[in-house]
Amino acid sequence: MRGHGADSPCRPPVTPGGLKMLPEPVIGIVGGRGAMGSWCARFFKQNGYQVLIHDKDTTITLAELAEKASVAVISVPIPVTCEVIKAVGPFLGADKLLVDITSLKAESVKAMLAYSEAEVIGLHPLFGPDVEDIKGHNVVFCPTRGDKWLPWLKDLFTRAGAEVIETTPERHDEIMALVQGLNHLNTILMGLAIEKIGIETKDLIAFSTPAFRTKLNLIRKISSQDPHLYAEIIAGNPHLPSLFERYIEHANHLKELLEGKNSPEIVRLIQKLSLVTAGEKG
Amino acid sequence: MRGHGADSPCRPPVTPGGLKMLPEPVIGIVGGRGAMGSWCARFFKQNGYQVLIHDKDTTITLAELAEKASVAVISVPIPVTCEVIKAVGPFLGADKLLVDITSLKAESVKAMLAYSEAEVIGLHPLFGPDVEDIKGHNVVFCPTRGDKWLPWLKDLFTRAGAEVIETTPERHDEIMALVQGLNHLNTILMGLAIEKIGIETKDLIAFSTPAFRTKLNLIRKISSQDPHLYAEIIAGNPHLPSLFERYIEHANHLKELLEGKNSPEIVRLIQKLSLVTAGEKG
Repeated sequence: MRGHGADSPCRPPVTPGGLKMLPEPVIGIVGGRGAMGSWCARFFKQNGYQVLIHDKDTTITLAELAEKASVAVISVPIPVTCEVIKAVGPFLGADKLLVDITSLKAESVKAMLAYSEAEVIGLHPLFGPDVEDIKGHNVVFCPTRGDKWLPWLKDLFTRAGAEVIETTPERHDEIMALVQGLNHLNTILMGLAIEKIGIETKDLIAFSTPAFRTKLNLIRKISSQDPHLYAEIIAGNPHLPSLFERYIEHANHLKELLEGKNSPEIVRLIQKLSLVTAGEKG
Repeated sequence: MRGHGADSPCRPPVTPGGLKMLPEPVIGIVGGRGAMGSWCARFFKQNGYQVLIHDKDTTITLAELAEKASVAVISVPIPVTCEVIKAVGPFLGADKLLVDITSLKAESVKAMLAYSEAEVIGLHPLFGPDVEDIKGHNVVFCPTRGDKWLPWLKDLFTRAGAEVIETTPERHDEIMALVQGLNHLNTILMGLAIEKIGIETKDLIAFSTPAFRTKLNLIRKISSQDPHLYAEIIAGNPHLPSLFERYIEHANHLKELLEGKNSPEIVRLIQKLSLVTAGEKG
């Protein structure tokens, strides 16, 4: 079912297990009609792979999917990820690969290790389903069991132009508490403040600065996607409450400074921000 | 000193006072070597006007500037704006125009009315000095005394492509508490959270989503400009403390929701955000 010849740039140079004569892997996507599931299906198809999809309204059972596919990708909402893994995992033997692409990795990777003998990679594509080209976007790998499938999957993403980084599920979730959880809370808070103040959108636009327009775009991005996904990323990350508590402490400190019109101390805090973006390319 | 003939597209169609035979206005900029002062000088020169500049290291006195110029533009830091207006205002007669471009308008406009007989327009270009082309950017006008100069100045900005909006100094400051004050505090808070967590910038980049990169860019924008300007906009706006207090109330509410893993209520709050950007173009 590969659509490309041997010289196709999309053909992976590494065959899983190094056995060149093995059939090309078939990819089974559980939740393949959801937003990121559809993205995954398109991505693997574009790279020449046969893709099987299981979703609410498809006829293929999880057992059939697990039998026909050598790679199972779990792409379902965070709250049901572990139970879906529990349902499909036992059908996947040690020669196969089990991957989940949820936004939190500790629990899902634990479940994959517990309910399957397959090789296990926790994966987190750090972009939304609207991304056409993966080039320049980040993908986090949490390789946890086995080493036969990892080079193939990394190579696939790397050759498509993604920036691949490896870490542990725990460290991933810690960093995502900042990059996703706190970042979303920060944007939501600005949105709620605007909503409460009751200025009409046309007035907001007429009085907006470039930085404010950028903030409005971030708010629009959140409000135009599935609110459940954001709520799960926020409520499900165990590292976020303590981070958000410190955020509120900073806010209370800033409130005192602005009530006391303490400009010099506000200047000092702003000067600290240069540390955040030091060494970063513009 | 105009560089254009009568048919130049840069020539203003409206001569102040409607007296076509009067000499073209000369623009005197107090603080003309600062960042926005330089922007103003360039803007007026590009539109064919003679520009005189007074700053710390220039030789022209305020009295000389006021005598030679028919339009005086005050472009100095917020904390010294009123005292500079007090110094130059008395030299400007009722036939002249006094304009300030500070980020807060209530106090500066009050000072211009108190210390000068000139016509008074409070002006706030809603962009930074790095903006090359004013096209599509917003400029707030607070016209307060006189009507001879207003059509000329509005026409100048409009023809250059700016979106001009008129309001009172008080309403301007209220809206800027949100668009500048709270917006900057929101960005600073995210920056402080990142700074405190102590993840190296290269790791932040490797784990970043598009939305997080956008946030990093906003933080970089603040940290690369004069921190005193931001501190003055924050500490000097009398409408900001109550707005920021409500922001912190929202934050405390969200903290409870995420500690209680109350996803449905977080979903409900996120759904409110669509009101903010409703009707806005993408």
